[in-house]
Amino acid sequence: MHFTSETRLDGDLLEREFTLDGVPGILWTPATASEPTPLILLGHPGGVGRMYPRLLGRARSAARSGFATATIELPWAGDRPGSPAARQVRAELIDVLDSGAPVTDDLVDRLILPLVEAAVPEWIATIDALLALPEIGGPVAHSGGAIAIATRLARIEPRVVAAGMFAGSYVPRSILAEAPQVTIPLHVLLQWDDEGNDRRMALDLFDAFGSAEKTLQANMGGHTGVPAFAGEDAGRFFERHLR
Amino acid sequence: MHFTSETRLDGDLLEREFTLDGVPGILWTPATASEPTPLILLGHPGGVGRMYPRLLGRARSAARSGFATATIELPWAGDRPGSPAARQVRAELIDVLDSGAPVTDDLVDRLILPLVEAAVPEWIATIDALLALPEIGGPVAHSGGAIAIATRLARIEPRVVAAGMFAGSYVPRSILAEAPQVTIPLHVLLQWDDEGNDRRMALDLFDAFGSAEKTLQANMGGHTGVPAFAGEDAGRFFERHLR
Repeated sequence: MHFTSETRLDGDLLEREFTLDGVPGILWTPATASEPTPLILLGHPGGVGRMYPRLLGRARSAARSGFATATIELPWAGDRPGSPAARQVRAELIDVLDSGAPVTDDLVDRLILPLVEAAVPEWIATIDALLALPEIGGPVAHSGGAIAIATRLARIEPRVVAAGMFAGSYVPRSILAEAPQVTIPLHVLLQWDDEGNDRRMALDLFDAFGSAEKTLQANMGGHTGVPAFAGEDAGRFFERHLR
Repeated sequence: MHFTSETRLDGDLLEREFTLDGVPGILWTPATASEPTPLILLGHPGGVGRMYPRLLGRARSAARSGFATATIELPWAGDRPGSPAARQVRAELIDVLDSGAPVTDDLVDRLILPLVEAAVPEWIATIDALLALPEIGGPVAHSGGAIAIATRLARIEPRVVAAGMFAGSYVPRSILAEAPQVTIPLHVLLQWDDEGNDRRMALDLFDAFGSAEKTLQANMGGHTGVPAFAGEDAGRFFERHLR
């Protein structure tokens, strides 16, 4: 892990850009923390530059609870090298959505599974590197991003002790089949009237998780209209499980 | 409204039992309030005596936010005169549940609609009487109880400005049809693995409400196992809308 920049932001937040095996990322730590902090990995739909304002907002909010946050760019997104295969299947998706035809399970598999396979090892390597820093002590939680990535990570990475998920993306059937093996506490946000979201699949996935503590919170307001109080409720979820 | 007892409980809560046109009820007010307070009506499944410990817990919690709370006994429940018709249909329900047969829409109608018709005017009369007290200023919210009663009250009583609902009881089709006319902010709790609950109906009802702000929070833990954090989240809902 190589730090490539270090900026002290207002509100006592230290922002450091890094690269890890060629993957760019950002680490935010509360500058005034006197002991190693818990860590929340911030998922996103790809394109850290485009998502930066919202990621920073989530980082600031977590820092007020004394938590470090970090994110990395997704495969084939942002400034990372593209993938002809990923471009091709994304173009297919756009054609299907434009035509009004249903998005088939096969298309969802080809769209999401390669992303999960490529991204999850990178997030695990990021956990390795961040927990090696003296200022990061754990425990580790994951928040948001593609729910398929979040589900796989929650299933296979025991250092992730809690996950806040956002039910706003496609879920391959094989990921749904993994859900019963997820047993950590979950807080799942669902935008009820999100047109780009398959509500039935989101409810099926929530139902399938094996966790004894799982909360589904559904709100109105469309894909990007998560109300402020829902963010605060999610923040309290992390406070309960990271302290 | 006649007060029949007055008790100062620890935690500076004043508890007064009352009767209103023969309906017994309880009013809890923060004893130290210096100005007229908002009011939360506490719904319940019937049997105030049996429900008293949980009702008192909800009253204490609301009083910490500076809110008065009140409840009345449901028709044909607790110490109120019974109804042969209500006893008959309840016995039918028990037979149906024992036999494992599905609970028909007709049975739900005969079980719930007379209760809604009888109870809602009593809750409205209670609002009238409580708002006439100098220590109660409004606004008024409704919390819990049979969701069919809560839905009807939210639809027809404009003084109820917000409702916390508990999706844990039968919903007649005609009440589902009223839901689009409910437009106040809603916070709906659903116990996801509640065996006595029809989850599909609960989701349909949540979907049908006309409110621009509505939140569904689903948790694990069975009918009576609402986690403490869910109660706190509901408390914040009332704080947002009653202040």
